[in-house]
Amino acid sequence: MEGVDYLRDERSKAQFDVETMKVAWAGSPEAFLVCDRMAKLVANDPVFEKFSKPMLGRKELFKNTLRKTAHAWKLVNDLHLTEEEAKWLRHYIDEPSYTDLQWEMFVPALEGQGTEEQKKKWVPLAKTMQIIGTYAQTELGHGSNVQGLETTATFDRQSDEFVIHSPTLTSSKWWPGGLAKVTTHAIVYARLIIDGHFYGVHGFIVQLRSLEDHSPLPGITLGDIGMKFGHGTYNTMDNGVARFDRVRIPRDQMLMRVSQVTKEGKYMKSNVPRQLGYATMVSVRQTIVSDASKALSRAVCIATRYSAIRRQFGSRDGGPETQVLDYKTQQSRLFPLVASAFAFRFASDWLKLLYTDVKQRLEVNDFSTLPEVHACTAGFKSLTTAATAEGIEECRKLCGGHGYLISSGLPELFAFYVPACTYEGENVVMLLQVARFLVKTVSDLGNKQPVGTAAYLGRASLLVQKNCVVQTAEDWLNPIAILEAFEARAARMAVGCCQRLAEFKSPEEGFAELSSDLAEASLAHCQVIVVSTFIRRLQQDIPGRGVKQALEVLCNVYALFLLHKHQGDFLATGYLTPKQASLANDQLRTLYSKVRPNAIALVDSFNHTDHYLSSVLGRYDGNVYPKLYEAALKDPLNDSDIADGIHQYVQPILKQKLHSSKL
Amino acid sequence: MEGVDYLRDERSKAQFDVETMKVAWAGSPEAFLVCDRMAKLVANDPVFEKFSKPMLGRKELFKNTLRKTAHAWKLVNDLHLTEEEAKWLRHYIDEPSYTDLQWEMFVPALEGQGTEEQKKKWVPLAKTMQIIGTYAQTELGHGSNVQGLETTATFDRQSDEFVIHSPTLTSSKWWPGGLAKVTTHAIVYARLIIDGHFYGVHGFIVQLRSLEDHSPLPGITLGDIGMKFGHGTYNTMDNGVARFDRVRIPRDQMLMRVSQVTKEGKYMKSNVPRQLGYATMVSVRQTIVSDASKALSRAVCIATRYSAIRRQFGSRDGGPETQVLDYKTQQSRLFPLVASAFAFRFASDWLKLLYTDVKQRLEVNDFSTLPEVHACTAGFKSLTTAATAEGIEECRKLCGGHGYLISSGLPELFAFYVPACTYEGENVVMLLQVARFLVKTVSDLGNKQPVGTAAYLGRASLLVQKNCVVQTAEDWLNPIAILEAFEARAARMAVGCCQRLAEFKSPEEGFAELSSDLAEASLAHCQVIVVSTFIRRLQQDIPGRGVKQALEVLCNVYALFLLHKHQGDFLATGYLTPKQASLANDQLRTLYSKVRPNAIALVDSFNHTDHYLSSVLGRYDGNVYPKLYEAALKDPLNDSDIADGIHQYVQPILKQKLHSSKL
Repeated sequence: MEGVDYLRDERSKAQFDVETMKVAWAGSPEAFLVCDRMAKLVANDPVFEKFSKPMLGRKELFKNTLRKTAHAWKLVNDLHLTEEEAKWLRHYIDEPSYTDLQWEMFVPALEGQGTEEQKKKWVPLAKTMQIIGTYAQTELGHGSNVQGLETTATFDRQSDEFVIHSPTLTSSKWWPGGLAKVTTHAIVYARLIIDGHFYGVHGFIVQLRSLEDHSPLPGITLGDIGMKFGHGTYNTMDNGVARFDRVRIPRDQMLMRVSQVTKEGKYMKSNVPRQLGYATMVSVRQTIVSDASKALSRAVCIATRYSAIRRQFGSRDGGPETQVLDYKTQQSRLFPLVASAFAFRFASDWLKLLYTDVKQRLEVNDFSTLPEVHACTAGFKSLTTAATAEGIEECRKLCGGHGYLISSGLPELFAFYVPACTYEGENVVMLLQVARFLVKTVSDLGNKQPVGTAAYLGRASLLVQKNCVVQTAEDWLNPIAILEAFEARAARMAVGCCQRLAEFKSPEEGFAELSSDLAEASLAHCQVIVVSTFIRRLQQDIPGRGVKQALEVLCNVYALFLLHKHQGDFLATGYLTPKQASLANDQLRTLYSKVRPNAIALVDSFNHTDHYLSSVLGRYDGNVYPKLYEAALKDPLNDSDIADGIHQYVQPILKQKLHSSKL
Repeated sequence: MEGVDYLRDERSKAQFDVETMKVAWAGSPEAFLVCDRMAKLVANDPVFEKFSKPMLGRKELFKNTLRKTAHAWKLVNDLHLTEEEAKWLRHYIDEPSYTDLQWEMFVPALEGQGTEEQKKKWVPLAKTMQIIGTYAQTELGHGSNVQGLETTATFDRQSDEFVIHSPTLTSSKWWPGGLAKVTTHAIVYARLIIDGHFYGVHGFIVQLRSLEDHSPLPGITLGDIGMKFGHGTYNTMDNGVARFDRVRIPRDQMLMRVSQVTKEGKYMKSNVPRQLGYATMVSVRQTIVSDASKALSRAVCIATRYSAIRRQFGSRDGGPETQVLDYKTQQSRLFPLVASAFAFRFASDWLKLLYTDVKQRLEVNDFSTLPEVHACTAGFKSLTTAATAEGIEECRKLCGGHGYLISSGLPELFAFYVPACTYEGENVVMLLQVARFLVKTVSDLGNKQPVGTAAYLGRASLLVQKNCVVQTAEDWLNPIAILEAFEARAARMAVGCCQRLAEFKSPEEGFAELSSDLAEASLAHCQVIVVSTFIRRLQQDIPGRGVKQALEVLCNVYALFLLHKHQGDFLATGYLTPKQASLANDQLRTLYSKVRPNAIALVDSFNHTDHYLSSVLGRYDGNVYPKLYEAALKDPLNDSDIADGIHQYVQPILKQKLHSSKL
C-alpha cells in the first residue's frame, strides 16, 4: 500500500542515531546540507525523471540529456548556485553529459596548464559556457601511454601557427566525451614538432565547431564512436572521434605554463616546476575514490533493503519464509560491501586533506612527499574502483532474479560504473606504479626513512620477524592487532618481491617477470592504507548515539573480511598461524550478527533519494512488489495484447502455414 | 586492409595442429561437422545479422527476433534438420527466443512428467509447433523455493476440473520466457488443493491464448515484465507475468506421471519413482556447463586476439610498442581463463557420460549414485557459471577502453550470460546443497564408502595426515601431485567443517552459522572434480601434432592458477608449506610462457565465426581499427553533423540566451 513503510520494523531496530550518521557519512553538517538540498532539488523536478531512459533510442536519449543539461545550467544561474552546489546538482542528475568534461577536465586543464594570459582569455569564456570544451588525449590506437600518441602539432614559423594533424587512422582522437556533437573546443594532446625535431607531447586549444552554426570547422572530421555498455549510462554522452587534416591554430593556443615555443620556434621550459600537475592528479583521484564510495553505497542500499523485504525458504508451519537478510551467506557477501562503502568514504575524506597538504608543499617547492602521494593515490584508485565494480555486481546477484531487471537499478549502475576500472589509469597498470614505488622504498631503506602512508615500511626489518600474538577471537577486535597484521603481511610481500627481483639479470626483466606478484604486493600495501585510514578516523571524536560503535563494527568487518579473503598472503608470509586466521573468521561471523540490526539504518545513512537510486528493489518504503508490477507495465511491449510481429511471424507457425508465408 | 590476415604471424607460431584441436574441442569429428555447418549456415544468412540489435527499440527488437525465429523454423523444415542440428542452429542464432523454452523446458517437461496418454496428445502438438509452451514456475515473490509458491490449483469434483488461481499479487507468475506475448500454453506450477487439503506443488498444462486470434483467454492477464540487463540479450525475449482469476482446466491437464488425482478427488502416487526427474536435472546442468564453456570461449577468443593486435608501452627507439599479450600481467589474467574454457568443456563432455550412466541406473531402479550425482552437478553448475561470468568481465577489462564499446561484443556477452549464476539454482544455494552432501558423506564414512566424484573422501583419514612432497617447481607438473593437493585440501576443509558443526547445539543451527565456510568447502570439492576430469581426459588418447601437449599445459595452468588463487585454503589446512605454494606459482609463470606462442591458435580452435563472436575486437583477421571506425559510423547519432537538440538546448547556452529560451 502507498504511504506504508514496510521497513519500519527494521528501522526501529537501529542501535544508533541515523541523522548523526548521515552527517558522519557526508563529512560535515555543511556538506550534508548541500548534498541533501541538491538531491531533493533534482528528485522533485520532473525534468530530471530517469525511469524512461532504457526505453529511449540513442537519439532521443541524447537529446533528452541535452535538455536536462540546459535545464540544470538554467537552475545554476537562476538559483545562483555556487560551484560546489552546481557540482552536486550535476552529480544527482546522474547522467553523463558534456558539462562533466567542461568542469572536470577542460576548465582544470586551462587553469593548470595555461599561462596567466591564457587563463585570462579562456577561463571566463569556459566558465560562462560561451565555449564548451573537452579533453582530447586518447586515440583509437593509444590509451594509457601518452608518449605513444601519434597526433602531431608542427610549428610553422612563417605563419606563427601550429598545424594539428592526424597522420594515421590510429591517431584519430577517440573517446573524449562531448567531442562528437557538442563541444566547440578541445584541448588536443599532440606531439610537438619543430624543424623536424620532437619536443614531447603537449596540449593545444583547438576550436572544433563554428560558434555561429555549430558546424565542424574545415579540416576537422567529427563523429560519435557508437553505443557503449548499458542503456542510459554513457550513451547519454556523445563520446567522439576527431580527425584533423592539417588544421592551423595560432601559436598562443599551445598551453604554455610549463613549456613555451617562441615565435622564432625556440622550445623553452619555464621555471614552473613540472610537479605542479600532481595536485590536479590528487584531486582527480580523490573524486574517483569518493565516486567509488557513492556507487557502492547505492548498490548496497538497494541490496540491503531488498534483502529485508525478500523472503525465501525457512517457513515453519506455513508461516512467512525467512528474510533473506537473515541468512549468514547473504550477510557474509553483503555486509563487507556495506563496510567497504564506509571505508572508501573515509579514504576519500582523507584524500581531501592530502590534497591540501600537497598543494601547500608545492607552493614552497617541497616535492619530498610526491612519490609517496603518487603511489598512495594510484593504489587507492585501483583498490576502490576494482572493489566497487565487483561489489555492484555482487549486490545485483544478491537480489536474485529481479536484480536482472533494469527496474532494479543495478544493471545500469554496473554498466555506468565499470569504466572507472579502466579510465584515469588502468587498475593493474596503477598497481604496477605502486610496485615501482614499493621496490624503490624497500631498496632505499638503509638510506631513507619512508614517509606518510609508507612510513610503516621503515619498520620492515621488525615486521618481517614479529609474529601475530592473537590468541582469542576477541583479540581480533583490537585495531592494533589488525593494523600490525596488515602491515606485516604487506611489508613481507614487498621485501619478498625485492629479494626475488635481485635474482634476475636486469631489474627490468625481473620486474616484467614478477609483475603479477608485484601487483599482489601493491594491493597488500593499499589495503594497509585503507584499513589504517578507517582506524584513524575512529580515533577522532564522532558524535551521536551509537554512531561510533556502529562504525567500529564496520571497520572490523572490513579488515577481517579482507584478512579472510587474502588469508593466503597472511599465511604464506608466516605472520599468522592457521589457528589465528581461523579465529579472525570466527570473529567476523560474530560481527555480522552485530551489523544485522543496524543494516537498514546504515544504508539509510547514505541519505539516497529514491530518484537517485532509481531502483524499485531499493525503495525507501520497501513497497517492492506492487511497484515492480507497475514498472513492468510501462514497457512498450505492453502497449497491446497482441504484439507487433505475432500475426506475421508466429501465427503462420501455429497454423502450419509457414511454408507459404513471406518472412 | 581487407583480405589481409593481421594475425598470420601469430598463427604461424602455433606448436600444435589447429584442425585436430578443433575436433578435440567439439568432442568428436561428427560434433565438429554439425557445429561447423550450423555456424556457417547462420553466419551466411543475412536474416540472422546481429550488429544492428543495440540500435533497435524494444518493440523492433522483439519483432526482429520473431522474424529470425520463424526463419529458423522454416530452415529446420526445409532442410530437414535433425533435432540436434536444430539445437545448434538456435544456438548460433544467438538470441533468446520462445523456441528455447519450447524445446528445452516445455517438451522435456511434457515428456518427463506426463503420462503415456498425455505425452501422446501433447508432445506431437508441441513438436510440430501447433502449440507453443513455456514453463511457469517462479512467481513475483518466489524463486528458488518451489514449496513457497502461492498459485493454487483447486480440484472441483463437480466439474472434474482444476481451478487455477493467483490469490495474491506476489503469486503472479513472473519471468517465464515467451509468456508475455507468444506462448499459447504453459506448464503452471501450483499448490494442489483437494477438499481444503494441500497435496504439494504440481505442474498443470494451461492454455493461455486463443489458437485462433492469439488473444489471452478469459481470466488470464498476461504482460511483459520489462527491460532486462543489456541491449539485445534477453530483451529479445518476452519474459512475462501471468495472473489467473479462477481459470478452469480439465482434470487430465495435471501432469500425472508421478502422482494422480482421480475423478473422485483421490490423490495417489504412482509407482513411478520420483527420482526419475534426476536424469532431466543432469541433462539441464550438462547444458549449463557446456554453455559456460562456450560463453567463456567467446570472451577469451575476443580478448586474446585483441591483445595480440593492441600494442602499448615498451617502444624502443621509436619502434612499435609491445603487444599487450606479451605482458605477464595480461597473461596471468587471460591464460587461466583460456584454460578454464577447456576445463569446463571437458567437464561438460564428462557430464554427458554421467547422464547416460544415470539414465541406465534409473531404468533398473538403482538410485545409489543419485546423492553424489546431485551434488556433483550442482557443484559444477555453481563453479562454472560463477567463473564464466567473472571471466567475461575480466576479458572486457583486458580489452581496455574499447572493451566498453558495444561493438567489442563483450558488454552484451556479459549481460547475456550473468543470469546463469541465478537461474536453475542460485549459485550459493547450490554450494550449500553440495555442503549437505559433503557433511553427510563425511559423517557416514565409517559405514559407507563414498562413490564417484566423492570417492576420494573415502581416503579422508589419510588425506588429513599426508603432506605434500613437492620439492621443485617441476614437481608441480605431475598430475598426481596436483590431484592429491586438491583432494587433501578439500577433504581437510570438509572434515574441518564437520568437526566444527559438532560443537553446535543443533546441526541446523550449526549449518546456518557456518554456511559461508561450508560453501568454501564445497567449492574446494567442486574444484577437485573439475581438475580431475581435466586430468582424466588427458589420460585418453588425443590425436594430432602437439594437441595433447598443448592441453597438458592448459590443464596445469588451470590447476596451479586455482591453487594460487586459493592458497589460503591450501596453507590453512596445512597440506602445503608456503615454500611449496610459492614453487607452484613459479611453475605457473613458466607455463604462461609455454601458452604464449599457442595463444591465438588455441582460441582459433573454438572455431567461432565472426558472426557468432559479433566483436570487432575479436575479428579473425585482426583488422580491428578500421572496423571499429566503420562500426562507429553506423550509430544513429552520426546521421547528421548537427545532432537533434543542439539548436534547441546547446546554442542558447553558447549564445548566452538561455534565460529567454523555452526548454
